[in-house]
Amino acid sequence: MRMCDIIKKKRNGFELTDDEIKYAISGYMGGSIPDYQMSAFLLAVYYQGMSTRETVTLTRCIENSGDHVNLKDVKGYKADKHSTGGVGDKTTFVVAPLAAACGIKVAKISGRGLGHTGGTVDKLESIPGYQTSLSIDRFQEIVNKVGVSVIGQSQELAPADKKIYALRDVTATVDSLPLIASSIMGKKLAAADDGIVLEVTVGNGSFNKKIDDGITLARVMVDIGNAAGKKTVAVLTDMNQPLGYTIGNSIEVIEAINVLKTGKGNERLVDLSIELTANMINLAGMGTLEECREIARKNLENGSAYKKFYEMVKEQGGDVRYLEDTSLFDLGETKEFVANKSGYISYVNTEGYGLASLYLGAGRNKIEDKIDFSAGIKIVKSLGEYVEKGDTIAVMHTSDKSKFEQAEKKLAESTTISKDKAELRKVVLGRIE
Amino acid sequence: MRMCDIIKKKRNGFELTDDEIKYAISGYMGGSIPDYQMSAFLLAVYYQGMSTRETVTLTRCIENSGDHVNLKDVKGYKADKHSTGGVGDKTTFVVAPLAAACGIKVAKISGRGLGHTGGTVDKLESIPGYQTSLSIDRFQEIVNKVGVSVIGQSQELAPADKKIYALRDVTATVDSLPLIASSIMGKKLAAADDGIVLEVTVGNGSFNKKIDDGITLARVMVDIGNAAGKKTVAVLTDMNQPLGYTIGNSIEVIEAINVLKTGKGNERLVDLSIELTANMINLAGMGTLEECREIARKNLENGSAYKKFYEMVKEQGGDVRYLEDTSLFDLGETKEFVANKSGYISYVNTEGYGLASLYLGAGRNKIEDKIDFSAGIKIVKSLGEYVEKGDTIAVMHTSDKSKFEQAEKKLAESTTISKDKAELRKVVLGRIE
Repeated sequence: MRMCDIIKKKRNGFELTDDEIKYAISGYMGGSIPDYQMSAFLLAVYYQGMSTRETVTLTRCIENSGDHVNLKDVKGYKADKHSTGGVGDKTTFVVAPLAAACGIKVAKISGRGLGHTGGTVDKLESIPGYQTSLSIDRFQEIVNKVGVSVIGQSQELAPADKKIYALRDVTATVDSLPLIASSIMGKKLAAADDGIVLEVTVGNGSFNKKIDDGITLARVMVDIGNAAGKKTVAVLTDMNQPLGYTIGNSIEVIEAINVLKTGKGNERLVDLSIELTANMINLAGMGTLEECREIARKNLENGSAYKKFYEMVKEQGGDVRYLEDTSLFDLGETKEFVANKSGYISYVNTEGYGLASLYLGAGRNKIEDKIDFSAGIKIVKSLGEYVEKGDTIAVMHTSDKSKFEQAEKKLAESTTISKDKAELRKVVLGRIE
Repeated sequence: MRMCDIIKKKRNGFELTDDEIKYAISGYMGGSIPDYQMSAFLLAVYYQGMSTRETVTLTRCIENSGDHVNLKDVKGYKADKHSTGGVGDKTTFVVAPLAAACGIKVAKISGRGLGHTGGTVDKLESIPGYQTSLSIDRFQEIVNKVGVSVIGQSQELAPADKKIYALRDVTATVDSLPLIASSIMGKKLAAADDGIVLEVTVGNGSFNKKIDDGITLARVMVDIGNAAGKKTVAVLTDMNQPLGYTIGNSIEVIEAINVLKTGKGNERLVDLSIELTANMINLAGMGTLEECREIARKNLENGSAYKKFYEMVKEQGGDVRYLEDTSLFDLGETKEFVANKSGYISYVNTEGYGLASLYLGAGRNKIEDKIDFSAGIKIVKSLGEYVEKGDTIAVMHTSDKSKFEQAEKKLAESTTISKDKAELRKVVLGRIE
């Protein structure tokens, strides 16, 4: 077998055998296939695509390029949810304890990474004392005791994904369906979950701009998960506006705490959290989807989910006074972003809101950047709402006042006010199983 | 400017600016752009193609990646002909002295390379004593005195071509029109000729299988040459059978000597030699194409071309007794390949005949292989001729008798005998200027 022939076969639009795909990935990881052949291969995949069978095989190769997470001591059904990425997405902080409250185990190993805000692990670290770096034994102990634990990644899962992604990033092969699907699912399959709920975002704040793209990606990922023997389902969600009222780290944690405490809050955030949780416990066989929605809603409203979150934070060393009184969080300096005319907020560039948050210091451009936990955006008027000239649309937060100018400019660019009402989509657009 | 953006732009089908192409090639040669980005770029070019303007720019970048041949002391109009490659192509040995006999200068710097037979330089070295390695001063002296000289390459022209070709070879990007055209023309533009006649082969012995492919390639290369200020014309030629009666090194030189001596020989070889020469002297302004054909034919038939060849060989140290008596050449052991049934030779796999010649020892598989000058094939019955069972179709030559078996098998596979006559094409299929 020669890599050149494999590139040519894919380049000419033929389906590769499992052996050919395995040869390519194992050769690349072993060093016998150089970067320049892998990048040519990735370009060929970009143009010619991959069948579901090929994509499954590629995903399994990525999955098996390193160790698997071993959580053999965790008792019960383990489910996780994973989002393809959005702005203001704090559902993990609601869904993880809520699913635990409903009776399943959520052993979430999460990332940091680059983005408009920190990753899940960064956000949790805005609670003083919260330890995201635990031994696997201690992690399993908390999962068994509380039902939920969220920690950072210590071992590198699916190292082929990291190596291939670095190459994709510099060879214009990021936006390829089989490469995106195998990257996400390769890592998920290396985790220890029995069931996986994928949140596939669609809209101007996602890389899936069109709903068809989201459906296709969801379809492929669900097929991969099921082919690998893990029950997998996908929920398509609207990302034509940030999710909830906040974008940032501390500020998102506060919003989630308030939802957990009261069972209420931003309707889209609450609805989506219920839907994702319902799908997780549905995979565990806790009833029909409709029944599972009821179970989830009840456990959110009766405070059980908040209790799980409180216990998790306590077990992981976090200062629970911040949960009891969220005014303890430092939200820095504030500045209002106001409407420059009257009308409806008819369009929000979600990506732009994310960038404004990044400019305020909430995220990382480079891996070594430090996150300003206090930085972020509180949205006062959302997509579709009416504003008078001078009304506050959003409040910017940061510990560095010099950052307001650039962020405010970006928010202004990203907000369209007109006499026409926006067409609003529901937060849950569909479900693929 | 970032290479990743350039790859993406081409990947998405947009035309690159001259600056972007220059950035890519100079960055690659300078080491700031790695192989893996160049291979992704080449794949994108493979799929999306290039406009003529882009291809011209790419060619000029390749041309200017190294030095140019400087033949400032040569007096007169310098023209060269270059073939895209075929089997049995010994036209250089007829055309170069014939063009010189017609009054122009042919200062040919030729290659070795890999192939079914040696390159032009290897073939000439089958004449004992012939020196292919001369100083540029001595080269120019011979060109001025005789009108023609053929030597090997000492300086590396267009080094970007070598570097890019090595990458194309292992990333399935050899068969891309703009990459083929810029590779050939980049080197031709770095040479010192005033006019260029391209022989573009078409058929089962060429990489241009279809005539349309040949026309497209010829059109692009002619446009590149003219855009770079060198008069360029292309002759499309048939490669559905080997050219002439011989394939090899000594054996091809002998066939050429006989044509030069007598003005006669294989009709296709003579016709093509006249046509290529006529185009060369036509570029020099020696008359209409029809007039130039007459001039060329006269100088072939009256022995002037033979005289030029004789003088060139003498000046370059070759043993001219081999020209006077070609039976001095060692043609090794022989074995006949005979017809296994009666009928017309209705199809010849030209590539297969080339491989049989390689198997006999006439060419190189690897750069370090030694060529057996005596090895090759004499064709007795050509495409379209009638044979009785047992008739000799070809005679194999080699200094290593153990090689007959594999070569004979290949010749048998490559020769179809049937009751139907073959459809024969003329050797000159067209002309593009």
